[in-house]
Amino acid sequence: MPVGTHGAVKAMTPDQVAATGAEIVLANTYHLSLRPGEELVEKLGGLHAFMRWDGPLLTDSGGFQVFSLPKTEISDRGVRFRNEVDGSTVDLTPERSIQIQRALGADIIMAFDECTPYPADEKLARTGVRRTLGWLERCAKAHDGNRRQALFGIVQGSTYAHLRKSCAQAVVAMDLPGVAIGGVSVGEGHDLLVEVTRTTAPLLPEDKPRYLMGVGMPDDILAAIGLGIDMFDCVIPTRFARSATVFTRRGRIRLTQRRYRRDAYPIDPSCDCATCTGGFTRAYLHHLFAANEILSAILSAVHNVHFYQRLVADARNAILEDGYSDFREAFLAQYAGS
Amino acid sequence: MPVGTHGAVKAMTPDQVAATGAEIVLANTYHLSLRPGEELVEKLGGLHAFMRWDGPLLTDSGGFQVFSLPKTEISDRGVRFRNEVDGSTVDLTPERSIQIQRALGADIIMAFDECTPYPADEKLARTGVRRTLGWLERCAKAHDGNRRQALFGIVQGSTYAHLRKSCAQAVVAMDLPGVAIGGVSVGEGHDLLVEVTRTTAPLLPEDKPRYLMGVGMPDDILAAIGLGIDMFDCVIPTRFARSATVFTRRGRIRLTQRRYRRDAYPIDPSCDCATCTGGFTRAYLHHLFAANEILSAILSAVHNVHFYQRLVADARNAILEDGYSDFREAFLAQYAGS
Repeated sequence: MPVGTHGAVKAMTPDQVAATGAEIVLANTYHLSLRPGEELVEKLGGLHAFMRWDGPLLTDSGGFQVFSLPKTEISDRGVRFRNEVDGSTVDLTPERSIQIQRALGADIIMAFDECTPYPADEKLARTGVRRTLGWLERCAKAHDGNRRQALFGIVQGSTYAHLRKSCAQAVVAMDLPGVAIGGVSVGEGHDLLVEVTRTTAPLLPEDKPRYLMGVGMPDDILAAIGLGIDMFDCVIPTRFARSATVFTRRGRIRLTQRRYRRDAYPIDPSCDCATCTGGFTRAYLHHLFAANEILSAILSAVHNVHFYQRLVADARNAILEDGYSDFREAFLAQYAGS
Repeated sequence: MPVGTHGAVKAMTPDQVAATGAEIVLANTYHLSLRPGEELVEKLGGLHAFMRWDGPLLTDSGGFQVFSLPKTEISDRGVRFRNEVDGSTVDLTPERSIQIQRALGADIIMAFDECTPYPADEKLARTGVRRTLGWLERCAKAHDGNRRQALFGIVQGSTYAHLRKSCAQAVVAMDLPGVAIGGVSVGEGHDLLVEVTRTTAPLLPEDKPRYLMGVGMPDDILAAIGLGIDMFDCVIPTRFARSATVFTRRGRIRLTQRRYRRDAYPIDPSCDCATCTGGFTRAYLHHLFAANEILSAILSAVHNVHFYQRLVADARNAILEDGYSDFREAFLAQYAGS
C-alpha cells in the first residue's frame, strides 16, 4: 500500500497512483483527525471522495504517530497528547480511534494498539500486549459489527516469542477479518524483523489477510512474503523518491550522483512505469533534482511506487506458479549484485 | 506558452501540459546553458527529447535574466555576467546566444536583445534600440538561414513611441518569420503596456506571428489580443498555482483562505480541466496547501495552465466568429465582477 498520510500520496495524482498498479492506499488517522478533521472529511463524503481514490482505503489507528510525540501520556484508558497543529490537549482512546476511522470511512480500519518501541524490556512488552488486547476488545465493541468497515486486530509483543504467541492467540480468537503484526520496523533491523515474523505469521489464520505494518525494504518484504505475509505499507517509495533515491532491479541508485549527469538511460530499462517508458532519462532526472524542480519528485515517485507494485505482483505470480523461493533468490541475487 | 524555465513546466508532467491544450512551451536559454549546459542537452538529442515535449518549443535569448543580475556589464559587444552556478565569468553575445539556442534545438529562437528596464530615460531607451538592432543583425548572421529554427526579432524602445516605431521598422525590414515586442511587463503597468502594444503591434506584419513577451494577466492578454498580438508567455499560471492562487471565470481566488476550508465545489464549476472535472474540491485543495503537499501545486498548475489555454482558445474562436469585442467585454465583466 502506498501511503497517503494527509489524504494524498506524496507528489502523485490518484490517476498516477492507480497507473502503478496500486489497488489500495493507506491514510493516517492521526494526521487527518488534526487536519482537516474527520468531521469535515465525513461531511464532504468521506475519505474516498475527499482524496478522489476509488479503490480500497485503509486507515491506521492514529496511535503509532502519537507514541513518538513528546509529552505523550499512556494509560490503560488511552493516550493523551499535545495537538501539533493548535497546541491543545487531545485524548485518543480505542473508542475515539474507531469513531474517527468510521467518519473517515476507509474500507479497512485498524484497532488502536500500543506500539512497543524497540528495544523494550519484557515488562514493557507485556504491558503493551495487555493494553493492546484490552483496547482491541473496546475497539470491537465500538466498531459494533459495522459491516462497511473491516476491523483488523494487531499483534504486539516486541521481540519476545512467548508474548507474540499469547497475543496472537488472543487476537485470532476475536475472529476479525484480518490480522496485522505491529511493533515491527521500529529500528530492530532485518534479522529481528524476520524472526518476529517467523514466530508470529504461522499463528495467524491462513484464509485471512496478514498485514505486516510499516514494512519495508524490498528484502524485508520478500522475506515476509515467504513467511506468509499478504499486506504491507511503507512510505519508503515516495519518501526516497523525493530525495532522489530510486529502485531498480539491480539495486537502489541515487540520481543526484555525478555519474548520472550524462546518462541517457531510463531509471531502469526493464521497468514499464510511466517514467521509464516515457523516455525520461537519468540525466534529465539528475538535472531536475539539481534545479529543484517538483517534477523530479513526481517522476521518481511514479517509478518507485510502480517498482514496489511490480515487486509484489511478481511475488504473487511466483506463488501461484509454486516458484516463490526461486523467484526470491533470483530477485535478490540481481538486486544485491550490482 | 506555459514556461518551462529549466526544461520542465513547474509541477507538471509533459502529458499534463499537453492535456491543458497547450501547443507550445517556452524554455529559458540562460538557465539551461548554465545547467545542465546546452552541450549535454544537444548530446541527449536536443531539448524536445530531453524534456519529452513533442510539440513546438521556443527558447528566449538568455538576455532577459542576465540583465537583472548584479555585476552584469553591458557593451555593444554583448553582456558579461557572473555565472550563478559556479561563480565563473560568462560572456553572452548575439553569436553565443544563437549558438546555445541552436544546440538546444527549439523550433522558435529569439534574437539577443537589450531589454530596457522601466522606467528608462530616452537616452537609455535609444541605446537599447541601437544595440538591439545591431545585435539582431549579428544574430541573423549567426543563424545563417538555418531552416530548422525560426528566428524572431524583438522590438524595443521602452515607452517612447518614436523609438518603438523606428525599431519596429528596422526589425520588420529583416523579413524574419515572426516579431516580438520586448521590454514590456517590466513594471510599467497595464495602461502603459497597452499603450506600447497599441503603438507597436500595427507596425508588425499581419501575416506573421506577433509575440508579446512575458505577458501576462488575463486582462493584459485580452487587451493585447484586441490589438493584434498572437503569442504570449508567462510564468503566472504555474507560479500563482504554487502559492494557492487559482484563476476562475469570476476572478482569482486564493485557496488558502479560510472561506474555502469547507467548500465542496471545484475551483471553477465551469472549468473542464482535469482538476475540476476530477472532483477535487476547494476544501481538498485548501487542505493540501495547509499540509504542504506537493499535490496542491500539481492540481493547481493543471487548472491554471488550462485556464489560460481556454482563455486564448475562446479568444481565437471569438475572432473567427467576428465577435472578439463582445467576448472580451463579457469575459472581463464576469471576471472583474466577483
